[in-house]
Amino acid sequence: MSSKIRIGIVGYGNLGCGAELAVSRNLDMELIAVFTRRNPETLNSKYNVKHISEILDFKDKIDVMILCGGSAKDLDEQGPMIVSHFNTVDSFDNHAQIPEYFEKMDRSAKKSSKLGLISVGWDPGLFSLNKLLGQSILPHGRSYTFWGDGISQGHSDAIRRIEGVKNGVQYTVPIQEVLDRVRNYEDIDIPANRRHRRICYVCAEDGADLAMIENEIKTMPNYFAGYDTSVFFISEEELIKNHSKMPHGGLVIRTGITGKNNRQTMEFKLTLDSNPEFTSSVAAAYARAVFKLSEEGKIGAISVFDVPFAYLSPMSGEELRRELL
Amino acid sequence: MSSKIRIGIVGYGNLGCGAELAVSRNLDMELIAVFTRRNPETLNSKYNVKHISEILDFKDKIDVMILCGGSAKDLDEQGPMIVSHFNTVDSFDNHAQIPEYFEKMDRSAKKSSKLGLISVGWDPGLFSLNKLLGQSILPHGRSYTFWGDGISQGHSDAIRRIEGVKNGVQYTVPIQEVLDRVRNYEDIDIPANRRHRRICYVCAEDGADLAMIENEIKTMPNYFAGYDTSVFFISEEELIKNHSKMPHGGLVIRTGITGKNNRQTMEFKLTLDSNPEFTSSVAAAYARAVFKLSEEGKIGAISVFDVPFAYLSPMSGEELRRELL
Repeated sequence: MSSKIRIGIVGYGNLGCGAELAVSRNLDMELIAVFTRRNPETLNSKYNVKHISEILDFKDKIDVMILCGGSAKDLDEQGPMIVSHFNTVDSFDNHAQIPEYFEKMDRSAKKSSKLGLISVGWDPGLFSLNKLLGQSILPHGRSYTFWGDGISQGHSDAIRRIEGVKNGVQYTVPIQEVLDRVRNYEDIDIPANRRHRRICYVCAEDGADLAMIENEIKTMPNYFAGYDTSVFFISEEELIKNHSKMPHGGLVIRTGITGKNNRQTMEFKLTLDSNPEFTSSVAAAYARAVFKLSEEGKIGAISVFDVPFAYLSPMSGEELRRELL
Repeated sequence: MSSKIRIGIVGYGNLGCGAELAVSRNLDMELIAVFTRRNPETLNSKYNVKHISEILDFKDKIDVMILCGGSAKDLDEQGPMIVSHFNTVDSFDNHAQIPEYFEKMDRSAKKSSKLGLISVGWDPGLFSLNKLLGQSILPHGRSYTFWGDGISQGHSDAIRRIEGVKNGVQYTVPIQEVLDRVRNYEDIDIPANRRHRRICYVCAEDGADLAMIENEIKTMPNYFAGYDTSVFFISEEELIKNHSKMPHGGLVIRTGITGKNNRQTMEFKLTLDSNPEFTSSVAAAYARAVFKLSEEGKIGAISVFDVPFAYLSPMSGEELRRELL
């Protein structure tokens, strides 16, 4: 019998690959299998890759499944199905649909007596935790979230769907002047499109109408309209050379007042070379928590708000108090 | 019957006054009484101030006591005594003695079926949480803590004990160059005395030997020896005008590597006009958690590591998921 936490990964895109790497860095975990909808033989993994149809064969062999379905849409189906057989961690990130997804996961998990931790990562996830912490400690104050500098997959996809565009990426960049005003305790209620700029690097097809592409990007509703957007046309070589990583990050700031106008600021900041690798590192740590909570008999759906940090660590309570408190 | 959380405060120094202000900002809390070892009539509070000897009269009238004893020494006695009658939150901050204090509190609280949350504030407290979070998510990495810019009470007291010194304050200041190296992923193991400078503003007695005072400060073992220390002599007026607040803060940084050398940084930073008011604001939020956990039947001693963030908020789980996740 293994004394390590037995992990399964469902999905082998950017997140799934990140999860594989993250699990290997956690010495108390063992990766049992990766499940994919593709042909397992086509995947380049040194681990045990299985077709998703074989997942139930692992019912007693895996303690926690890390769900790395590419989109909220994948998870919406996969999550409730998998949690009816396994404990799960997922990074469901469609904020508006979280309450509904939570209910589905909760019903399914309670039926199977499993535990499903939803919406883990940094946003939702660590950023959510810091927003909660900030407003609980400084009730008289204001919270701000800034994203970037980093690549937004959704916006990059939107660019790539435009006719005449071969490839492209979009960086979300916080506007420094607004950040300075926030840190300086100006009590401003400023919408996302005035806290961020968007910078696009676009590789066009030969003979495409560049002015038209630029205009189409800048006026695209819900994505770019209303934002200060810059478009730069570059060669495919340059795109691959300089824009192939997936950096991201951002910060959550709470500015508040205590007593007689004393200004207090809490700031949580991430600077990430690889967004998917970081997200899946968070998921791995929370998989440990799911394992421990499930061993204690906890069932149903939970979020990061429900997990004491002690459960994230392989260390005992005693060690944690001695070394980190 | 009150539907608010009924709070008591023990001790009415800087922390106790801060707690009084913090409780008044939390609309789901009610301050029932402040307990002091001094003559209650001499204290300037608009609340119910009682002598500590009357504390047991409030056994069924207070849900959580916030212990604001000035020092770890006070708490070491007071904590176990009070938790044998009340749920408590304290900010015991003598890091080396935390394990022993935890055991004492745990024994006493289990006997009385009460709950005692120890070492709440920012360090120990929020900084400890961020250290735990950082090393759990990025196991391959290094954590750094920087304190300041801010006034250290212990070091200010040490200055004031020197002969010829009328008054004085000491600021702990992180060394920017080291901070830059850390943020730049240099894997350095650099001790506290090379991460921080110490700046002292001293108001000397008339005719005191300034050179001797400066030398005594700079060579003081455990406090200043080994540090880059600057001493400035100023007038008492200037000291009162410019150095009467109690600012502090600092940051916890985790730099780590995931995958193929992708650099990931997590940073938690506090910038505080008033150290005691912030510490007691943290204690107030955690008093809410103690109330909720105790209602669920939790007893014994716990630390911030054991408290899910959901318990810090007056909002329901549903509201939290909808608005903050």
